[in-house]
Amino acid sequence: MSTADIGLPVEVPSTALFTDQYELTMLQAALKAGTAERRSVFEVFTRRLPEGRRYGVVAGTGRVLDAVENFRFDAGVLGFLRERGIVGEETLDWLANYRFSGDIWGYPEGEVYFPGSPVMRVEGSFAECVLLETVILSVLNHDSAIAAAASRMASAAGERPLIEMGARRTHELAAVAAARAAYVGGFASTSDLAAGFRYGIPTVGTSAHAFTLLHDRERDAFQAQVNTMGRGTTLLVDTYDVAEAVRTAVEIAGPELGAVRIDSGDLLLVAHRVRQQLDELGATNTKIIVTSDLDEYAIASLAAAPVDAYGVGTRLVTGSGHPTCSMVYKLVARTESADPKAPLVPVAKKATGGKTSIGGRKWAARRRDEQGVAEAEVVGTGPVPDGLVDRQLLVELVKAGKVVAREPLDAPRDRHIAALAALPLSATQLSQGEPVIPTEYVHEGSAG
Amino acid sequence: MSTADIGLPVEVPSTALFTDQYELTMLQAALKAGTAERRSVFEVFTRRLPEGRRYGVVAGTGRVLDAVENFRFDAGVLGFLRERGIVGEETLDWLANYRFSGDIWGYPEGEVYFPGSPVMRVEGSFAECVLLETVILSVLNHDSAIAAAASRMASAAGERPLIEMGARRTHELAAVAAARAAYVGGFASTSDLAAGFRYGIPTVGTSAHAFTLLHDRERDAFQAQVNTMGRGTTLLVDTYDVAEAVRTAVEIAGPELGAVRIDSGDLLLVAHRVRQQLDELGATNTKIIVTSDLDEYAIASLAAAPVDAYGVGTRLVTGSGHPTCSMVYKLVARTESADPKAPLVPVAKKATGGKTSIGGRKWAARRRDEQGVAEAEVVGTGPVPDGLVDRQLLVELVKAGKVVAREPLDAPRDRHIAALAALPLSATQLSQGEPVIPTEYVHEGSAG
Repeated sequence: MSTADIGLPVEVPSTALFTDQYELTMLQAALKAGTAERRSVFEVFTRRLPEGRRYGVVAGTGRVLDAVENFRFDAGVLGFLRERGIVGEETLDWLANYRFSGDIWGYPEGEVYFPGSPVMRVEGSFAECVLLETVILSVLNHDSAIAAAASRMASAAGERPLIEMGARRTHELAAVAAARAAYVGGFASTSDLAAGFRYGIPTVGTSAHAFTLLHDRERDAFQAQVNTMGRGTTLLVDTYDVAEAVRTAVEIAGPELGAVRIDSGDLLLVAHRVRQQLDELGATNTKIIVTSDLDEYAIASLAAAPVDAYGVGTRLVTGSGHPTCSMVYKLVARTESADPKAPLVPVAKKATGGKTSIGGRKWAARRRDEQGVAEAEVVGTGPVPDGLVDRQLLVELVKAGKVVAREPLDAPRDRHIAALAALPLSATQLSQGEPVIPTEYVHEGSAG
Repeated sequence: MSTADIGLPVEVPSTALFTDQYELTMLQAALKAGTAERRSVFEVFTRRLPEGRRYGVVAGTGRVLDAVENFRFDAGVLGFLRERGIVGEETLDWLANYRFSGDIWGYPEGEVYFPGSPVMRVEGSFAECVLLETVILSVLNHDSAIAAAASRMASAAGERPLIEMGARRTHELAAVAAARAAYVGGFASTSDLAAGFRYGIPTVGTSAHAFTLLHDRERDAFQAQVNTMGRGTTLLVDTYDVAEAVRTAVEIAGPELGAVRIDSGDLLLVAHRVRQQLDELGATNTKIIVTSDLDEYAIASLAAAPVDAYGVGTRLVTGSGHPTCSMVYKLVARTESADPKAPLVPVAKKATGGKTSIGGRKWAARRRDEQGVAEAEVVGTGPVPDGLVDRQLLVELVKAGKVVAREPLDAPRDRHIAALAALPLSATQLSQGEPVIPTEYVHEGSAG
């Protein structure tokens, strides 16, 4: 079982080794000390947004669910741990039977988040929860960073579609996750076939400069492409002289030519010239696609240009300056015994050097003003104030080890649009700023 | 077959879909046009180093060789391409038999590179070479970015070992590749178990704040850890009060305590205090490990501190500000027919907006001065000047489709140390600068 049932089925290998070694040594020490079965609550949150960002985007939740389901120690993995002497036989026996049997709640994928938002909460025995730290953080930190960049680019692009083209600039499997996160953040399609295969994301692509250079004349390359792809294809027109290429393109494909792609030069200027030329040649429906180191600022600067779609690569897959989030996975409460009825005790590391943690199992809600606009992220322990009960953000994702919140990838995409629309308008300003709403803490015992 | 024979064997899935769609549509168009079999030379190079960097580090070569060997279109993949209508039946038949049968030369892994260095050269039919663009670039762009950051951190750390701990800050499989690249760049070990499993890299790890917080008293947590890991373990001492934790740690483990880890606060100050306290307690051999958002600058600033090892996470796996390289894969020469004896014709896109490419199949050599110090990266087409024949950088990696250059991971690690040692001393300055040696071009027909 995996989110692959939305795309095509693929075999998912075990995720059990996407783990920092200390998780296994802590497990072993806790098993020996008799503390491994204490009921524990771990929370994922970030102390701050990347500098200047006004909101974050939760992405990767579906991949986390896959990872938790496939977190199993098979014979090969156990053999490795034994051979390396990382843990002893008793721990290996325990690991051989590992299945996460606890509960996971979290912000639903596509939702926005702010500093302190408990974007995910993992609850079960210390032993079963502590092992999931690294894989959960890997997925959320990577995917949320990409989705946040995608969201800003989508705001800048308005109604014009965005194509994800960054696979070549990042690890080959990070690229697949990046295409997925970009889709959640508002992109329309990807060039990455593996992302189409794995997640059912629409894929696009026509040709590169190499194809033109392969042929003796640009005309031959265009003709070859039109012969096989049809007149609706996209011809790349900046290998030699753009004006000549556009003329040749329309000559070969006629006014039915689908689109031309411009991958270099002053895009604003060139797009205007090409639009004018296409119109003069009668190709008034032929679209213009631009690519070439675009980011949200470059996209915004092309708002007035006659551009129909943007292809974005490097800056998308590297999070547009912020390639990771700073989400952490912290123990916030645990019982004092393995008795399932023992009360949870809040715990927290002492604050030093900006590393503040707040103990206790938390709820979160987004308070709205009378117009329905979000005005605060409220995070608390204890009872939820009446006015916020309906505004709670955490939803059940895994119940007693079973995934209960699978959804097709359009769900988080739509959810993100809705979440963004409920934020103050300044959320989508591209300039550096503070989080668009403040985070307020309501502690148990304080006034609701 | 994979570099896994160095670590433990793992099954490597097909890499054929780590491909941008346009590679398949170009293939189809070229097959139909009769140009697919033209012999072609593609080169991987970068037009510039990341801003301020003095050298680049080639990493990922071993992973590229795995990816090329596993680039096969199985029934599932072909079914996907058919169902989506990405290519037609004739192209699918061609893909079903795909095996790369050409030649690949490249800078050996761990070697340094500069703007214009032809770090990899892929030669064969246009059809077989064009498909490898994305996967080769994904691997090299990601892994080389990490290795470059690792190399700078290793220079800053001097003789002190570096531990890679960044898995939680990047995609879970990018993390495995990052640990590998970090090892090539000079790191000693990783916390990532999957990297130990896959590549045989030494793994380390002991405990997190959660382990201390799980227990009723810090003392109980330390005792539990020592009970299972022995006195040589590393105790994390900054959950509550550092001085008290150090006292408790030595009380429990005795002067044989392996190490203490400090993960927050003013590391310079705290390390000095902890060293003094450990010495006063007789734990003169107990080491101090620091972690907490370190990068090469923070490491350098701790050179005078009594620190024995550094753990580096976020800044390593995000390339310390440069999470990707800007390597491109360009057609630089091809024949005018499928005749294998036809001469290669240099090709290049017209230069626009800084996107300059130089046509022709290239060699590269690093010229040294009389003291053996590198003084220029010389890149040329045509015959290699006599004095540079022995200084050539490209080595044979794949010959007629067969990988001929597998090596254990210590080889690129050692090679990197040697390559760095042969550069001018200013190479390892951390401050922003120009490439430490210039790239000179020698064109066919020009004076050697």
